[in-house]
Amino acid sequence: MFSASATGEKSAPLPSAADVLKRFQGVRNETDRLAQPLSPEDQVVQSMTDASPTKWHRAHTTWFFETFVLQPFLTDYSLFDEAYGYLFNSYYEAVGERHPRPDRGLLTRPSSDEIAAYRQHVDSAMGELLQSAADESWVDLSALILLGTHHEQQHQELLLMDILHAFSCNTLEPKYAGGVPLETTDMSRLAWMEVEGGAFSIGHEPEGGFAFDNEGPRHDVLVQPFLIANRLVTNGEWLAFMKDGGYKRPELWLADGWAVAQNSGWAAPGYWRDEGNSDWSQFSLRGRQSLNLDAPVCHISFYEADAFATWSGKRLPTEFEWEVASQRDSETGNLLSSGALRPLPASADKPLAQMFGDVWEHTRSAYSPYPRFKVADGAIGEYNGKFMSNQMVLRGGSCVTPGNHIRRTYRNFFYPHQRWMFAGLRLVEDIT
Amino acid sequence: MFSASATGEKSAPLPSAADVLKRFQGVRNETDRLAQPLSPEDQVVQSMTDASPTKWHRAHTTWFFETFVLQPFLTDYSLFDEAYGYLFNSYYEAVGERHPRPDRGLLTRPSSDEIAAYRQHVDSAMGELLQSAADESWVDLSALILLGTHHEQQHQELLLMDILHAFSCNTLEPKYAGGVPLETTDMSRLAWMEVEGGAFSIGHEPEGGFAFDNEGPRHDVLVQPFLIANRLVTNGEWLAFMKDGGYKRPELWLADGWAVAQNSGWAAPGYWRDEGNSDWSQFSLRGRQSLNLDAPVCHISFYEADAFATWSGKRLPTEFEWEVASQRDSETGNLLSSGALRPLPASADKPLAQMFGDVWEHTRSAYSPYPRFKVADGAIGEYNGKFMSNQMVLRGGSCVTPGNHIRRTYRNFFYPHQRWMFAGLRLVEDIT
Amino acid sequence: MFSASATGEKSAPLPSAADVLKRFQGVRNETDRLAQPLSPEDQVVQSMTDASPTKWHRAHTTWFFETFVLQPFLTDYSLFDEAYGYLFNSYYEAVGERHPRPDRGLLTRPSSDEIAAYRQHVDSAMGELLQSAADESWVDLSALILLGTHHEQQHQELLLMDILHAFSCNTLEPKYAGGVPLETTDMSRLAWMEVEGGAFSIGHEPEGGFAFDNEGPRHDVLVQPFLIANRLVTNGEWLAFMKDGGYKRPELWLADGWAVAQNSGWAAPGYWRDEGNSDWSQFSLRGRQSLNLDAPVCHISFYEADAFATWSGKRLPTEFEWEVASQRDSETGNLLSSGALRPLPASADKPLAQMFGDVWEHTRSAYSPYPRFKVADGAIGEYNGKFMSNQMVLRGGSCVTPGNHIRRTYRNFFYPHQRWMFAGLRLVEDIT
Amino acid sequence: MFSASATGEKSAPLPSAADVLKRFQGVRNETDRLAQPLSPEDQVVQSMTDASPTKWHRAHTTWFFETFVLQPFLTDYSLFDEAYGYLFNSYYEAVGERHPRPDRGLLTRPSSDEIAAYRQHVDSAMGELLQSAADESWVDLSALILLGTHHEQQHQELLLMDILHAFSCNTLEPKYAGGVPLETTDMSRLAWMEVEGGAFSIGHEPEGGFAFDNEGPRHDVLVQPFLIANRLVTNGEWLAFMKDGGYKRPELWLADGWAVAQNSGWAAPGYWRDEGNSDWSQFSLRGRQSLNLDAPVCHISFYEADAFATWSGKRLPTEFEWEVASQRDSETGNLLSSGALRPLPASADKPLAQMFGDVWEHTRSAYSPYPRFKVADGAIGEYNGKFMSNQMVLRGGSCVTPGNHIRRTYRNFFYPHQRWMFAGLRLVEDIT
Repeated sequence: MFSASATGEKSAPLPSAADVLKRFQGVRNETDRLAQPLSPEDQVVQSMTDASPTKWHRAHTTWFFETFVLQPFLTDYSLFDEAYGYLFNSYYEAVGERHPRPDRGLLTRPSSDEIAAYRQHVDSAMGELLQSAADESWVDLSALILLGTHHEQQHQELLLMDILHAFSCNTLEPKYAGGVPLETTDMSRLAWMEVEGGAFSIGHEPEGGFAFDNEGPRHDVLVQPFLIANRLVTNGEWLAFMKDGGYKRPELWLADGWAVAQNSGWAAPGYWRDEGNSDWSQFSLRGRQSLNLDAPVCHISFYEADAFATWSGKRLPTEFEWEVASQRDSETGNLLSSGALRPLPASADKPLAQMFGDVWEHTRSAYSPYPRFKVADGAIGEYNGKFMSNQMVLRGGSCVTPGNHIRRTYRNFFYPHQRWMFAGLRLVEDIT
Repeated sequence: MFSASATGEKSAPLPSAADVLKRFQGVRNETDRLAQPLSPEDQVVQSMTDASPTKWHRAHTTWFFETFVLQPFLTDYSLFDEAYGYLFNSYYEAVGERHPRPDRGLLTRPSSDEIAAYRQHVDSAMGELLQSAADESWVDLSALILLGTHHEQQHQELLLMDILHAFSCNTLEPKYAGGVPLETTDMSRLAWMEVEGGAFSIGHEPEGGFAFDNEGPRHDVLVQPFLIANRLVTNGEWLAFMKDGGYKRPELWLADGWAVAQNSGWAAPGYWRDEGNSDWSQFSLRGRQSLNLDAPVCHISFYEADAFATWSGKRLPTEFEWEVASQRDSETGNLLSSGALRPLPASADKPLAQMFGDVWEHTRSAYSPYPRFKVADGAIGEYNGKFMSNQMVLRGGSCVTPGNHIRRTYRNFFYPHQRWMFAGLRLVEDIT
Repeated sequence: MFSASATGEKSAPLPSAADVLKRFQGVRNETDRLAQPLSPEDQVVQSMTDASPTKWHRAHTTWFFETFVLQPFLTDYSLFDEAYGYLFNSYYEAVGERHPRPDRGLLTRPSSDEIAAYRQHVDSAMGELLQSAADESWVDLSALILLGTHHEQQHQELLLMDILHAFSCNTLEPKYAGGVPLETTDMSRLAWMEVEGGAFSIGHEPEGGFAFDNEGPRHDVLVQPFLIANRLVTNGEWLAFMKDGGYKRPELWLADGWAVAQNSGWAAPGYWRDEGNSDWSQFSLRGRQSLNLDAPVCHISFYEADAFATWSGKRLPTEFEWEVASQRDSETGNLLSSGALRPLPASADKPLAQMFGDVWEHTRSAYSPYPRFKVADGAIGEYNGKFMSNQMVLRGGSCVTPGNHIRRTYRNFFYPHQRWMFAGLRLVEDIT
Repeated sequence: MFSASATGEKSAPLPSAADVLKRFQGVRNETDRLAQPLSPEDQVVQSMTDASPTKWHRAHTTWFFETFVLQPFLTDYSLFDEAYGYLFNSYYEAVGERHPRPDRGLLTRPSSDEIAAYRQHVDSAMGELLQSAADESWVDLSALILLGTHHEQQHQELLLMDILHAFSCNTLEPKYAGGVPLETTDMSRLAWMEVEGGAFSIGHEPEGGFAFDNEGPRHDVLVQPFLIANRLVTNGEWLAFMKDGGYKRPELWLADGWAVAQNSGWAAPGYWRDEGNSDWSQFSLRGRQSLNLDAPVCHISFYEADAFATWSGKRLPTEFEWEVASQRDSETGNLLSSGALRPLPASADKPLAQMFGDVWEHTRSAYSPYPRFKVADGAIGEYNGKFMSNQMVLRGGSCVTPGNHIRRTYRNFFYPHQRWMFAGLRLVEDIT
């Protein structure tokens, strides 16, 4: 059994059962909505080890509630299928053996329809549990359910990232959603905003509502004054980097990044397609589209972001600098709820734009525990802490991040070579 | 355009258009029948590089007729979809670029239903063509259509091999077909039949109906007298080999085989499952079943067959010895049409049993061209000749081989480490 | 040409030419002394990609002076051999193509004797240069020569690490140096020293003599109060971890570390050998030796160190915590000059022991640039900066680190899976 | 203990002890002569898994006599060093564990000098044994010693192949032997000799002196009439193949060969170097040399030979055809004793030239056992039989094959992708 402290929900006022149920149902419905355009065949494939099938996401998020909420808290709950624990556990060593990750795409059974039935079974039991939840367990129970909904929202984003990758492997170029014309906005001109130095409190405030454990404990960090760009780096700017030999000049790259770039034959961001005559298009959730030069560059790895920053004579921000600067922007933006499904040009009317949504922003910060961070006991403790090596922090959410999921203190993390997430960059510069 | 000589169909009397149409339709229907128990999800996966998705088999065999028959022979034929040529070409370099083989399982589109429509489109055009086929092209045309049907029959067997492999990766243990009780027959006792030596004509007789090009030219081979087992090696005999350390004694193995066995951790035939207490079951097209000790051992590689033969103090036959001995048996047996979907114990009433059907029989013959074999011009020439290295010949068909597809002179070939085909062995011994 | 600022040597008083020459000759002689016990055959092998042959170390350190000092600064200097630039460049992209790193062990030519002649040629030219160095270039020149000597000292440590690995692959168990009996000291008992929190200046003081560029700029860091162990973790304590299932319990490990440990079959530190009956020995530069339970554990990766700390209920220090605590110890210890060639038990008479020497101490800090760190222009800029991803910081030097090479601010770095360096750990604990 | 029958030496008249000693000493001295130009460093490296260090060849051939002759036959023989059995066993599973083959290049110890002492120790014991050999064991003993000498001669050829490969990895381009000017001979014009068909006896005659076990039993094979080229394919002819797109046209290649060629980036024979302007040189035991257009092409794989034959509209001979045709040439040629160390143009005065020496000739025959071949009992049985899969037969010896080692019936074998042996091809054509 997990204590509430495991989940990052600390001394905040307890949410009501009705509120929790509403959020639960909203998140569950959203997953169904996202999977709806996909055929049973679309939902079964796994196009690389990092990705998972749609069907698996739908089942795994359900398994999470079954395993961590229903089994410990709902008396007489009966498992939908005993075999599912093995099939749909992702990485929780404490919960037992698992189906090998690279083979998730071989699970033609259970069918899409059976997964739908599984979801219904668990949703119905969850409704029952939320009717009857005993007072004394509500602290823990509500925290776990909230954690489960945020967990499912993470998988909503993964679902879209993963299907984009799968579709990109098919020369038929399937579209997840219909094409729409390119945006023609008044893009804001690049400008630099000064951020003063000092000691800043970083991380989630204990009374600030839900957060993952890795966002705390809140603590002070010294930050030196710096300049931050008012918007994200654009496709047009990235083309200039490419034309200046960006992918061919080792002096711009970290040594590991250069090795990956050479071995992988990188010559452009992920999903870009060379149309000849120095023309590029971009494969997207709306199929192949011509490149919007004003939109933020997307599907770049940390290594590429760092090389671009070096080429620019600037650098990437630390995650602390980003969090401090983010105070100048509201926690809104082009998120999943906008329906764009792609990053959009910055609007000219904000002094600091695009801090939330559009693309995750690479930072130069390695993903490490905050001071006095403790891994929770039991399986839930495996949620974040065990990944704190070799990965880099990204901040701010993207155009496929659910809107009520992102936070100023949210720490996403990926390996520095990965590109299938919706990630871009914003530059900063030292004040000397 | 291909000449008839490319297909092995030489100076045999020409079949009538009605006969060809009947065979064509029969084969096409059989493919549909075999795919029928499989859901769209089952049909999309590729569980290893050697295997292909059911849907791909259905499309590729259709593409074969479209590319090699309809396009050259049916005036005004319009392609079902221009993109399919890239997706469903298997290995014909002469016909252009191809979708990468290891990624066939990523093709969620076209859907199963679209492939059904593709099949109908081509079948209908084939019907039209067979109505109108001009006399002067009938020699070539009929040969190509026959080749196409035999090609499709090969893929019928592959379809079953491949789905068995895919299902074996799922702990839910899906069944392709319902379970049936184990056979309890009077198995024939092991006996040895003498075959006299001499010069024998080997290979397909020019007037003997359809054959693949690799079955000719017919030519004489010297064979020394030998003894051949009256039946296949059984599961029970294989257990004795295992108990005597068969998988642990390098002196029994070819060096390459020993390396593969160690690297792969082989300790039993493919699809065997250790049930503890020295008990084994076998995963099959009918799900997991207990081991029938009297049934032929199946899903063994050439290396394992050779090690068993060495352990027995006998040896594997050459493909020539097998072909000579096969004269003592009729070209019938437990083939796909029996519906058993698994090898069965030998019946006691035949002096030489199981030469056809049950399992492909490993030979000690490397897959090499017969004297004066010529590769045909053009893409059809890629059918067999270019695989004549590194593989071994197997003879006699299996319980998943279509009945009107097998022949005494039929040369199947696999790499010596492969085990997913329905393959077993029969022993021979020198007479000294 | 490189500016002095590239080397970290900033506004410190300039050393005299005589001092520089003395240090240069001392370091060069030490390399020869270290290589002396090794036969020409010993000096040619490369036992893994991370390692390099002794001969290559001897040549590469010489190439460094030839390329970065003699060519730009000594008029009329003639290269010893034009081909050596290609053979002995390590990773400087700016200086041109290189012999592939994994193939360094194939260079049977030039011979050991030719490398000796190369060293003499360069040493003699360096002597000449130091006689005649013009005043105006002395700032840059002296900085580069000092950098070259510290670079060579790094390779001295690598030489010993690499030959230990090479010898460990040979069942004859060659000894680099003669065996000596195990030390029997009064080991200090484990105790915890409190370190107060606050803002601390971290990094090299500009006037503090030589340092690498990655040790600056000096800047303030907030540190919370903590307890630090008075000595390193011992072999005896590591055995307790092993007996408690340390290598078998995934909950103790970072996810990436667990994967590496499983794939690599780790069950004990590097070079430990299972002698049966729960008895272990250790292969060392003095051959196989029985395990000294009081000596520090050595040849463990970051992943293992982190798992041990988790098992202990403690944690690894950050590199900042380490640097702050190190003020309580002098910059001396069991370094290369002690001649021990292995880590020794802590002496009981120091309140905080073993901060310098014995083993490099793993920290939980990823190797990142300090605020306002700038990579120098040109090839020398490749020295440190381009490795600032995926690696972890280690502090304090080891028993194979040259004595006048280590510093309180010295940042060594290795990948978290590497174990061939002399690395161990010290625990810290939060004060709550 | 091994019986004489294991070695292929059957009922031939027994050689005298003096003859055996003379041959033994001659072979042993020749190995020393071949290793003499190589420094201790040259002798330690292993530049690929297929190759072995010179020092290892010198030791392994000595271990063969120690293990299979001295230990069983010389009373009171004391091993030179007990550890050598593990280090210098190649692949004899029956004799125990072995040092891993890919790590042979890590054995810096024992030194070259120690191996020289090992050789002397064994040679001296062999001399003693040959003085005292008891009559009753002479049949077996003499057969084993002869086998040991032929085994050592195989390693003499390997030693030269392997050092050529090692030197080819070094941009200094070391020479095993001094350069000599290119030969300018009257090369014979290409002509075709007719060979009649029939039944031919193939394999070693029982009374014909020493042969390896794989050369028997002698047996009859049917061969159809064919034409054979009077000489080997030349470098000039190979250039024509290259200019005609030979390495770029998949239709010329076996499927496996095409895959290897693409993955390996083959664009020319092994050791050819592109000098620009369509000019090629060749790295050889005498260093880099310009290409002799009249000399036989060398260092080509079976796959390349087969592709060339297909391009020529001809084919490779079977090993039986080669053996039958070889009756028209004497068993002499440009072998190791010529001192050329490279293949030479065919002389114009022989109707069928170059059947022996110059280059091993690829055949289209897979390496399979002859009818009634039996693997000998014990370790010696591992000599040849266990390699009878996946490899192809080559015939006729090369310019680095010892002269009194080659035979008309000699079956050499390599994998179809290997190129480091001195191998070329001769074409044949069917008579129709």
